[in-house]
Amino acid sequence: MNANVVGVDRSLDAAEIKRVQDPAQIRRLIRSGRYAGRTGGVAPGYVQANLCILPADYADDFLRYCQRNPKPCPLLGVSDVGDPRFPGWGDDLDVRTDLPSYDVFEHGELTESVSDIQALWRKDFVAFALGCSYSFEYALTSEGLPLRHVDLGMRPARYNSSIETVPAGPFRGRMVVTMRPFKPAEAIRAIQITSRFPMVHGAPVHIGLPHLIGIEDMEAQCVTNFIPYGEDEIPLFWGCGVTPQLAIEHARPPICITHTPAHMLITDRLNASLAVM
Amino acid sequence: MNANVVGVDRSLDAAEIKRVQDPAQIRRLIRSGRYAGRTGGVAPGYVQANLCILPADYADDFLRYCQRNPKPCPLLGVSDVGDPRFPGWGDDLDVRTDLPSYDVFEHGELTESVSDIQALWRKDFVAFALGCSYSFEYALTSEGLPLRHVDLGMRPARYNSSIETVPAGPFRGRMVVTMRPFKPAEAIRAIQITSRFPMVHGAPVHIGLPHLIGIEDMEAQCVTNFIPYGEDEIPLFWGCGVTPQLAIEHARPPICITHTPAHMLITDRLNASLAVM
Repeated sequence: MNANVVGVDRSLDAAEIKRVQDPAQIRRLIRSGRYAGRTGGVAPGYVQANLCILPADYADDFLRYCQRNPKPCPLLGVSDVGDPRFPGWGDDLDVRTDLPSYDVFEHGELTESVSDIQALWRKDFVAFALGCSYSFEYALTSEGLPLRHVDLGMRPARYNSSIETVPAGPFRGRMVVTMRPFKPAEAIRAIQITSRFPMVHGAPVHIGLPHLIGIEDMEAQCVTNFIPYGEDEIPLFWGCGVTPQLAIEHARPPICITHTPAHMLITDRLNASLAVM
Repeated sequence: MNANVVGVDRSLDAAEIKRVQDPAQIRRLIRSGRYAGRTGGVAPGYVQANLCILPADYADDFLRYCQRNPKPCPLLGVSDVGDPRFPGWGDDLDVRTDLPSYDVFEHGELTESVSDIQALWRKDFVAFALGCSYSFEYALTSEGLPLRHVDLGMRPARYNSSIETVPAGPFRGRMVVTMRPFKPAEAIRAIQITSRFPMVHGAPVHIGLPHLIGIEDMEAQCVTNFIPYGEDEIPLFWGCGVTPQLAIEHARPPICITHTPAHMLITDRLNASLAVM
C-alpha cells in the first residue's frame, strides 16, 4: 500500500483513486491520464454529474427539454458557448479533460469512446451537467436506508417507461426510470429524503404499480440486470439520466458528446449542499 | 337566508354555522348552546383538535404516551393542572364549554355525552389537544389532491392495525390507522404534503401492502364504512386520533372526558401555520 499514491507517475487503480479525498486532485489525476476508470465510490460525498455536450444550434432546444423535464433531466450547470467550464462547480474544472471517458455520438449513433475531447472541442459547443442518482443514493444511505442493488454489487434496475416526456424542438421520447425496492415505512422515508434533492432527480415519479407506466413484467422488461425484491417491499421509480440520451437519439444531432456510463464528472460541491431544506 | 345569523337568538344549523368565519365567534356560539352539531367544514382553514381530559395522576403517563407516539397522538397543547385553557390556541378558549359535545368515560367505558362539562370539571384535570386529520386533509385538498371519502360524503376508512404503540404507564395498545387511496403520483405528493405537518399526524405510517400491518381483508376489517379504490390506486395509511382512545380503554382511568367524534375543538390557528417548512 502506498499512501502517497499521487506522487507515483503511473496509472491508479480503483482502490488507489478512492484513497484520494480532494475532488480537484482527482480531476487533475484524470486530466493527466492517470485514472480512466469508473467514478462510483470516488470522492465520496461530492456531486458527480452526467455530461452532455451539443452544438449551439441544438443546445437551446436541449436546455428547454431539460427545463421541461426536471425529474429525469435535472440541470446542474450549463456552460457558456465554447467555454468548457461550469462556474460554481470547480474553479479549475475543464469538461474537455476531466472525465475518465467520453462517448461520441454522430447523428445519434455511438461512434467512439475517448479519454479526452480537446481535439474534438468546438467554439460552438455547449456543455450540460445533469444531476445523477449517485447523489440521492448518497443521501439515502447516509440516512440508513438500504439499497438492494448496492448490496448486490449491481446497478439499479432500469426500465423504459411509457411516460412521455415534454418535447422541445427535436428532443422527445419516453422517460427512462430506475427502480429501487423498499419496505413500506422505508419507502415513505425515501420519498421524504429524495424530495429534498430536486437537482438530482428528486422524489420518485412512480410508486407501486409498474403496469401503470408500461412495465408489465419487471424481470423481462429490465434493461439492466433485474433487482429482485420481496413481497414485503414496494418498487419506487425515479427519473433516470438515460432519458436525455434517448431524446438525443431522437434528435440525431450531427455530434453529441456524453460521459461514458459510470464515468462521471466529479465536482467540488458536496451532495449535502444540494438539499433544498 | 339570514346573513346576520348571530343576531338571532335560536339554535343554528350546519349551513348557518358554516357562514360564520371567525373561530372565536363560533366558540362563543357553541359556548352559549346555540350550536351543538358536527364541526367538519366549520371555520374552514382553522385547526380543529381532538380533546382528552384526564386526572393529574394519569396525565403524566398520557403525556409520555403521546410524546412517544407522535404519529397517532400529535400533541398540540397541554393545559396546566386545573386550568381549562390552551395558551396560544385562542385567548378566550375554555375547554369546558367550547366543544359542541363531550363523551364521558368511567373506567374506560362511555357513560354519557354532554354539551358542557363545567359541572364535571375538577381542579386536578389536565386537558390535551391533539392534532386531527382535518388539518392535513385541508392541506391535501388545498393542493388539489382528491379525497375519495370526502367525494363520497363519508368518513375515512379506519382500521385497527397490528402496529404496537410504545407504552407509557398504563397506556398501551395497537395503532389505529385511517386509509386514503391515491394514484401513484398523487401518493408521492400526499407524502410530501403531509410530511410538512407533523403536528397533525404528519406523513403516512404505511403504504401499499396492508397485510404487513395486520389488514388481510380491507373491506371486512374496516371499522368504519369501507372506501373502495381502483386497481390504479395505492392505499396510504395515517396514524389516527382514535389510537389514544384505545390506550385509554386499556388504562381504564376512573374518569376521562373526550370530544364526541366529529365534534371538535375549534382553535384560532390556521392549519397552514402548522407547516414546518
